[in-house]
Amino acid sequence: MQSVEVIRVGAGTAERARDAAAAEEPLEIRLEGSPFVVTMRTPGADRELAAGFLLSEGLITSADDLGTIRHCGSESAGTEGNVVDVTLAGAASARVEAALASRRLVVATAACGVCGRRSIDDLMTNLPPIVAEWSMPAAVVATLPGRLRDAQSVFDETGGLHAAGLFDRSGALVVIAEDVGRHNAVDKAIGSQLLAERWPLGDTALFVSGRTSFEIVQKAVVAGIPLVAAVSAPSSLAIELARAANLTLLGFVRGDTFNIYAGEQRILL
Amino acid sequence: MQSVEVIRVGAGTAERARDAAAAEEPLEIRLEGSPFVVTMRTPGADRELAAGFLLSEGLITSADDLGTIRHCGSESAGTEGNVVDVTLAGAASARVEAALASRRLVVATAACGVCGRRSIDDLMTNLPPIVAEWSMPAAVVATLPGRLRDAQSVFDETGGLHAAGLFDRSGALVVIAEDVGRHNAVDKAIGSQLLAERWPLGDTALFVSGRTSFEIVQKAVVAGIPLVAAVSAPSSLAIELARAANLTLLGFVRGDTFNIYAGEQRILL
Repeated sequence: MQSVEVIRVGAGTAERARDAAAAEEPLEIRLEGSPFVVTMRTPGADRELAAGFLLSEGLITSADDLGTIRHCGSESAGTEGNVVDVTLAGAASARVEAALASRRLVVATAACGVCGRRSIDDLMTNLPPIVAEWSMPAAVVATLPGRLRDAQSVFDETGGLHAAGLFDRSGALVVIAEDVGRHNAVDKAIGSQLLAERWPLGDTALFVSGRTSFEIVQKAVVAGIPLVAAVSAPSSLAIELARAANLTLLGFVRGDTFNIYAGEQRILL
Repeated sequence: MQSVEVIRVGAGTAERARDAAAAEEPLEIRLEGSPFVVTMRTPGADRELAAGFLLSEGLITSADDLGTIRHCGSESAGTEGNVVDVTLAGAASARVEAALASRRLVVATAACGVCGRRSIDDLMTNLPPIVAEWSMPAAVVATLPGRLRDAQSVFDETGGLHAAGLFDRSGALVVIAEDVGRHNAVDKAIGSQLLAERWPLGDTALFVSGRTSFEIVQKAVVAGIPLVAAVSAPSSLAIELARAANLTLLGFVRGDTFNIYAGEQRILL
């Protein structure tokens, strides 16, 4: 969050004031010292973001694949706090070499969840279906938006951040992440659990503050999360992927009401 | 827009219904036959999207740089309607060869406005400042959200689409575009004007339905649009770029009120 000077214009009025803006800065993620991706993000939880991003990209599959994640920007280069270098372990190292060989530095954005895949077909493959069989009462689903909102520290002040929360099967909040990019918020939330070795996430539900795109569902599938819910609408491809992956997808979760788009067997009515 | 089957859950009720979901499908943009980028987008205005995207990426600077833009997916490959091939003219052809040589196929997302740049520093360079000196009355600014909303054909039904509108100096709507990705909506709106050779856009204002990120402002600067306004909040970097580029940036445009974050000289109070 940054304090900025604004002019507030009303009906026939204008006054100078200070306002809070959601912070957005580029983060460069390096792999073994080589530039890999630049994403626009809200600073904070950068290690979690890097871990979640690499997971979504298929470069790591567990915390065992990670060596170190450390900030390496410099004040002299003007990149202090905005570069992280990731070292990998074991088989992940070989995957990284292949990934680096197949592409140069890619600049992703706050919403770049599928950067680096090579073709349209790739988007729909290599995702194992969800097998978790637990269910969540509709009354618990209805509590998720309020619990996420209560935990949001920045949104109310700036109006500019997306939030993603992971909840356990009883509806208790496990972790919340915020970012100017909703994909980053999801990466941060998932990455935090990977780093804490609370993994896999088969007993977890993901709730996001905005809309649900293909990439959001893709990230959940990769992390093995069986239930994704959102305040707003899913896209057609998000619904298709959820159905193909046996994932429960809910939208328009507001008050006591919501829509089930896929995986109704996990909702207790 | 696609029709999908949903279960509507209320307090103690559940009923099957049909709902409309915002269509999201991958679009592969090829340059001279070579794969260049894949972006998740709402089908429609694909030629405009391709033109706007290539403009934002710096590969073209005017309609003269464009040869042809045509759909080339095939039913047998399952890509019908989801691949466009762009041929370029003159100096743009050389730029494309360099761009293709420096990277392989990149998969962008609905919000991928800066994919392909090579470093953090690049993000802040090569953008000429805005020189337009006209101004818009605050009362006209206040009419923009209503005019955009009146023109939106899909949002009300699906709740899943972002809209971007270009307006002339009197506040009249020139063109509206909708997409699951707000960056795509902006690319479609700007690309439509490039293709129609109504260019450059120095007498135009851009209004977007969501938040304003760095990339949205960047696209406006590249297109020479002097005024960007939005229903929601700008990010800190969007504000920084607007100030550096001498662009007028407005946020929280709702009813009679809005905030001026940069370029107040273009707002008549």
